[in-house]
Amino acid sequence: MADRLAKMKDDAGSHSPSLLTLREQLPELEISVDACFISNPYATQLFLDYFKEELLDTGAIRDVLEFYPSQNQVIAALLAGHLGIAEDRVFVGNGAIEIIQAVIHNFAKRRILVTLPTFSSYYEFAEGRVDVVFHTLRKGDDFKLDPHEYLAKVAETDPDVVTLINPNNPDGSYFSYEDLQTILRGLPPDVTAIVDESFIHFAFEDLNLDIRSIIAECEEFPNLVVVKSMSKDFGIAGIRAGYAVMHPERIAALLRNGFLWNSNGLAEYFFRLYCRSDFLERYDIVRKQYILETQLFYRQLAKVAGVKVYPSMANFALVEILGDVTADEVMQHLLVRHGVYVRTCSDKVGLDGEFLRIASRGLRENQRIIDALADVLGPLPQ
Amino acid sequence: MADRLAKMKDDAGSHSPSLLTLREQLPELEISVDACFISNPYATQLFLDYFKEELLDTGAIRDVLEFYPSQNQVIAALLAGHLGIAEDRVFVGNGAIEIIQAVIHNFAKRRILVTLPTFSSYYEFAEGRVDVVFHTLRKGDDFKLDPHEYLAKVAETDPDVVTLINPNNPDGSYFSYEDLQTILRGLPPDVTAIVDESFIHFAFEDLNLDIRSIIAECEEFPNLVVVKSMSKDFGIAGIRAGYAVMHPERIAALLRNGFLWNSNGLAEYFFRLYCRSDFLERYDIVRKQYILETQLFYRQLAKVAGVKVYPSMANFALVEILGDVTADEVMQHLLVRHGVYVRTCSDKVGLDGEFLRIASRGLRENQRIIDALADVLGPLPQ
Repeated sequence: MADRLAKMKDDAGSHSPSLLTLREQLPELEISVDACFISNPYATQLFLDYFKEELLDTGAIRDVLEFYPSQNQVIAALLAGHLGIAEDRVFVGNGAIEIIQAVIHNFAKRRILVTLPTFSSYYEFAEGRVDVVFHTLRKGDDFKLDPHEYLAKVAETDPDVVTLINPNNPDGSYFSYEDLQTILRGLPPDVTAIVDESFIHFAFEDLNLDIRSIIAECEEFPNLVVVKSMSKDFGIAGIRAGYAVMHPERIAALLRNGFLWNSNGLAEYFFRLYCRSDFLERYDIVRKQYILETQLFYRQLAKVAGVKVYPSMANFALVEILGDVTADEVMQHLLVRHGVYVRTCSDKVGLDGEFLRIASRGLRENQRIIDALADVLGPLPQ
Repeated sequence: MADRLAKMKDDAGSHSPSLLTLREQLPELEISVDACFISNPYATQLFLDYFKEELLDTGAIRDVLEFYPSQNQVIAALLAGHLGIAEDRVFVGNGAIEIIQAVIHNFAKRRILVTLPTFSSYYEFAEGRVDVVFHTLRKGDDFKLDPHEYLAKVAETDPDVVTLINPNNPDGSYFSYEDLQTILRGLPPDVTAIVDESFIHFAFEDLNLDIRSIIAECEEFPNLVVVKSMSKDFGIAGIRAGYAVMHPERIAALLRNGFLWNSNGLAEYFFRLYCRSDFLERYDIVRKQYILETQLFYRQLAKVAGVKVYPSMANFALVEILGDVTADEVMQHLLVRHGVYVRTCSDKVGLDGEFLRIASRGLRENQRIIDALADVLGPLPQ
């Protein structure tokens, strides 16, 4: 089993095999909790309620599947209205991953500075095309980015593109709106700053749990590119929806040679929902419910003997395994003995130690994760 | 109305505004037939039957929308099995349009030879990146490509990439399997040949109506790149599904820096259906039914006074307006007076005359198109 899991992991590169692949290749496994998968399940249910009422019950689903969706600029204009910015500043993507690819391939010409640990596509999409240099966050600092140390690293390495994920993946560390402004003000104006806010809906700076997106600053910083996945916060990874906010000249450059019809019909339906106040009001309730449950989960997880849970403002936490066992072994035991699938970070560059990334799911699933982890790490039964 | 239509057309570039955009911006229009839209409506219904039974009735739709789809290579491996070729020869795209973009951006380094008239993205995605040169098909030849004349043009213009659509868009002209082999054998081996077979399921060489795809020859011709949209033949443009067959080294080069998760959940569901014999058997029935109705439609369309219908092996025909009226005027009258939406070709490069591209829909809709066209082009009522 360990060998077969290792083989599947190899095939999936620096990502995890999907639940579907896992189920197909290891049909004897009973997977009850996918804590590898980082998304808000309550938001998925909200979307499904709208989907059923507006597309299935009315028969409108046929049009969504049969006809071409609108072009990039049409959907971008809708989003711009919702975001309160000019419509030539929004670029729509087939998931954030397409935008990351487009931005790195088109705007990185010389050297990219990637903060570690990170989402591997940020350096993989650049490798062989431009120099890749790293700024490594330390576990001794809880992976917290220090803006001044970061700006010193920029000055030292002289990149033309820098990438920052906030909250960061896979550790969930968060830098404040103020710290991000400090970084943007301190960057040379010709350095493109890619700020990935795919997990920003789970972060908060006070108990109102409001979203503090840097999108509002896009006019002040022409070098800023904000990337936003919809998969995590809205629980709709299968739809593939993402957008970016950047300077109009960059968007014009991308649209000049492509990216014309890159949304599918359901993504367009979702984006239209995302601009509607009735949907957003309900979404904000499930967003806040999920944040509160998630933060409670982390506090309970930290009580399990033999782990250290790093502070997280995302919907996953980085969990260090302190004993003599490896992260891969714990992952396998959780999967085989308890049907709990978590992300081993043994392939993550820049992590010193044995780490799992564990996503928050619903309340009951979170409890199963805690019980399973306590069992796997606990003393052997007599 | 004419001004507003012209403005919408301008906004959509060298494509037509979608039905959704049209309905939103001109809500007073009643559109009864979208003959701008080129897809098999019977195949859409077949897909919807499966979709309802397997995803909606079972509740499996939640997994499709919530979870990440499989990675590119996983879906490619499934398709390769169905196509009977090696799995490292298949590349999956978010619609054929993503593949056209990827292939042109990555493989065209110097000069691209594009056959005219054509689908505009073939030159638009290249413009400003590489030289674009054209090989113009003549209406006096029914837009039929002559393989020897074509090879002479290749020798004369010295491109590194050539593009061929078979059957061609927007005229529906078809070159035989044998002619295509002649071209592939005659091309210098370092010239990449992009052959777009997005409409090949509607073409036939004998009364069995079998599909004659050049994919089978991909091992013999390492410079061949076959592009295939699923939107037209399967009637699922909203899902965005396409694939390409090409040399393994080209696919490895594309996957090295991107295109990791470019399918959505419904596209993956469709691709899995596309590999199932029960689905394919039913599909082949609706494919042949649609071909027969389509060819009948063209014969009836040709009887309308004042038009010339060019021979087509696609699911649309190029219709020349012979009188003193422009294609734009006929398009507007069809839309406003009859709710019939057709594609004006006034923006198509390389067409000398006034042309509409009219898609075949269901039997009843096709009759409405004929009646509407006869009315618009007929003598004014006394």
